[in-house]
Amino acid sequence: MKVSDLAQQLGGELIGDGDVQVHGVSPVDAVKPGHVTLAENEQFFAKAEASDAAAIVVSLPVDQSRKPLIRVRKTTLALAKMLAIFHPAQKPEPGVHPTAFVGAGVDLGGGVHIGPNAVVRDGATIGDRVVIHSGTVVGSDGFGYALDGATRVKIPQVGTVVIEDDVEIGANVAIDRSTLGATVIKRGTKIDNLVQIAHNVVIGENTVVCGLVGISGSVTIGDNVTLAGQVGMADHVTIGSNATIGAQSGVTKDLEGGKYYLGSPAVPIGLASRQYAVWANLPELSRRVRELEKQLEELKRRSTQSR
Amino acid sequence: MKVSDLAQQLGGELIGDGDVQVHGVSPVDAVKPGHVTLAENEQFFAKAEASDAAAIVVSLPVDQSRKPLIRVRKTTLALAKMLAIFHPAQKPEPGVHPTAFVGAGVDLGGGVHIGPNAVVRDGATIGDRVVIHSGTVVGSDGFGYALDGATRVKIPQVGTVVIEDDVEIGANVAIDRSTLGATVIKRGTKIDNLVQIAHNVVIGENTVVCGLVGISGSVTIGDNVTLAGQVGMADHVTIGSNATIGAQSGVTKDLEGGKYYLGSPAVPIGLASRQYAVWANLPELSRRVRELEKQLEELKRRSTQSR
Amino acid sequence: MKVSDLAQQLGGELIGDGDVQVHGVSPVDAVKPGHVTLAENEQFFAKAEASDAAAIVVSLPVDQSRKPLIRVRKTTLALAKMLAIFHPAQKPEPGVHPTAFVGAGVDLGGGVHIGPNAVVRDGATIGDRVVIHSGTVVGSDGFGYALDGATRVKIPQVGTVVIEDDVEIGANVAIDRSTLGATVIKRGTKIDNLVQIAHNVVIGENTVVCGLVGISGSVTIGDNVTLAGQVGMADHVTIGSNATIGAQSGVTKDLEGGKYYLGSPAVPIGLASRQYAVWANLPELSRRVRELEKQLEELKRRSTQSR
Repeated sequence: MKVSDLAQQLGGELIGDGDVQVHGVSPVDAVKPGHVTLAENEQFFAKAEASDAAAIVVSLPVDQSRKPLIRVRKTTLALAKMLAIFHPAQKPEPGVHPTAFVGAGVDLGGGVHIGPNAVVRDGATIGDRVVIHSGTVVGSDGFGYALDGATRVKIPQVGTVVIEDDVEIGANVAIDRSTLGATVIKRGTKIDNLVQIAHNVVIGENTVVCGLVGISGSVTIGDNVTLAGQVGMADHVTIGSNATIGAQSGVTKDLEGGKYYLGSPAVPIGLASRQYAVWANLPELSRRVRELEKQLEELKRRSTQSR
Repeated sequence: MKVSDLAQQLGGELIGDGDVQVHGVSPVDAVKPGHVTLAENEQFFAKAEASDAAAIVVSLPVDQSRKPLIRVRKTTLALAKMLAIFHPAQKPEPGVHPTAFVGAGVDLGGGVHIGPNAVVRDGATIGDRVVIHSGTVVGSDGFGYALDGATRVKIPQVGTVVIEDDVEIGANVAIDRSTLGATVIKRGTKIDNLVQIAHNVVIGENTVVCGLVGISGSVTIGDNVTLAGQVGMADHVTIGSNATIGAQSGVTKDLEGGKYYLGSPAVPIGLASRQYAVWANLPELSRRVRELEKQLEELKRRSTQSR
Repeated sequence: MKVSDLAQQLGGELIGDGDVQVHGVSPVDAVKPGHVTLAENEQFFAKAEASDAAAIVVSLPVDQSRKPLIRVRKTTLALAKMLAIFHPAQKPEPGVHPTAFVGAGVDLGGGVHIGPNAVVRDGATIGDRVVIHSGTVVGSDGFGYALDGATRVKIPQVGTVVIEDDVEIGANVAIDRSTLGATVIKRGTKIDNLVQIAHNVVIGENTVVCGLVGISGSVTIGDNVTLAGQVGMADHVTIGSNATIGAQSGVTKDLEGGKYYLGSPAVPIGLASRQYAVWANLPELSRRVRELEKQLEELKRRSTQSR
């Protein structure tokens, strides 16, 4: 493929010789000869220039190089496109893997991929182009019990799960069906590995849920939300659209959309940053309080003497 | 079914017309006509009255309504009973799913359910009516190594796992067998999804372990304990019966039973609440210390001048 | 087996009658008659002496006992050896379990064990004597998307996974293959249950990763590192060799090797200990600041009056 053709497919600006041939894409620290690579900052650009790369994709304001450049707005999007161009046998392929188990009455959309040893329990609804990776369980029983004296009586979990179009779910995830009604993961949402999603949860569109996140029962999450790794959420809380929750945060109450939150309990990032700044110097703060106490004692003593 | 019959089955008090027919149970925000719904507070009661519900189950001190009421002590227990009444084909059904793997010499009780792609390794003991959900591994190797110079030598894990009667284990859980002796989960305990239980752990009766909890080796947990989501526990610690550990807590030492603990490290809730109250205002506390330092300097300066 | 023969196999010093027969190993709180047991401290030694043990393995400076003793440097290493001696049908046995799924083009070394319902995706490289426990997924798709306007476009994950010799991976773990190049787990590293390892991660040799740890994309970890339970790591960070990260820590930046770190964010243990010491008394620190403010006010008032 000619660099000029690649530039066109990426919607990027060609700078330099468009007739150079490229036949693959490599990361900047392991470039194969004849491959195109990406440089998202000055340091990587220097590496790319010194490498065997046939061409360089940049988002930097550089306009000359020993190698042909393709200037794009976002290198990550360009990477996604180039990987699809140079590795056309895209995976995961549609189909239910023979080792997966899909229960009775499951409504499977078109182009769905269900990976090895994944499980979709009875009655779940899986939209078009949904990808469910290996070992993931969709529609497991919700965790609900009522105390009858000292004994825990199971609350039958008779609801279902709805996974909308273009959702991708990582490996070894667990998504419970609801007690009544449906647990819902809306269109375009992406879920990483080892995530726990409890019964009656509703997650909006194009939301990102990172690894080891725990979402308790009846939580409602908006669109375009990002939950970073190991976030935990108390039951029944609501998170507005376009919110971002930092890693290891604990969400204990409703959070307004459009903001960045951090901490356990999670608070707006401005407050959290100031909390963590004090935390970093907490021993010093304690020492200063001791010093204040000493000086105040001294001052009181002198003040009494001088009277 | 007549409301009067339902009231009797729930052990509740009928208020109003007992001859009204009900044929299902719905959540209060999506009531189907002819269904009974539940109202556990005033807000839900107003919604229930405005809905198409044929009758309302309440635990509130209301005694009149446009609709027949059934007054019970606990709405959650009533919900459990009504779901069993209206959805009699209760799941999960007893049996070992054909995609599950049960090893050699496993002692399986009566009425056990082992879900799709679950694994029970050789020699485990599974009590009556135990439920093991999809993807869960019972009896995996414990994580034990001894350093021999720089090399880690595996400590053979030759013990077993005992799961007593009426235990329920969620999806994608891992419970290791012990090094010697047995890892034990006692009668009636309920374990949520994605929980890690290490070798030689003993968990008492009717305990509740929420999602993504990590229980390290040789931990001992009493009866009726609640471990909220993402709790972590150091190895060899003991938690007394009837203790509750709040979400994301880290248990670093033995904790007495009958109390509520929170935080990492976990401390009694009274102390934890005061810690978190100061944490919320930590930037302000830091500012006040700076202000004190400034004022004290000023006072010292004036005190010196006035001498 | 005679105690003298056992002492020789353990490389330990025999104290007392070497002709006594032992035919098994028991934990000190449940010793079977004729078994050898271990005592790593005085309390366990007293228990062992009072038990039915035929002999006692110790690392203590005791030199007499009613029972034959074997003195060794490390009781854990002795335990590993004795379990291998008395339970020679060592598990896990080499082989791919019939319920496991191994994809196309997987390069499997000698003596590999792949447990029930484990999954190894296409193209992965598994070294000699690697053990992969039940339900674990090796080579799942990395979690990478590029925003194209409001839509998340999948970044094809065309790389692979390399698991080197003598690595052991627990149950229900997820290890993603890389975007390009390889996710690498080096020789002798041990991974516990329910661990998440993202794409492009490189973990060094003889490292230990405990349960529920989350390692984000492109993290690099050195040799002989210990990550305790529920540790989380931000993407692209590097941890030097011989570092230890305490439980529930959050690693937000590069950490030098050879040190112990704790906290979220993780800092050297010296600082962390002082932070947690102040945290334990945070309500008291707050009260002292209030008291300082009151006393300072009083002092200012008196100072003004005395003028």
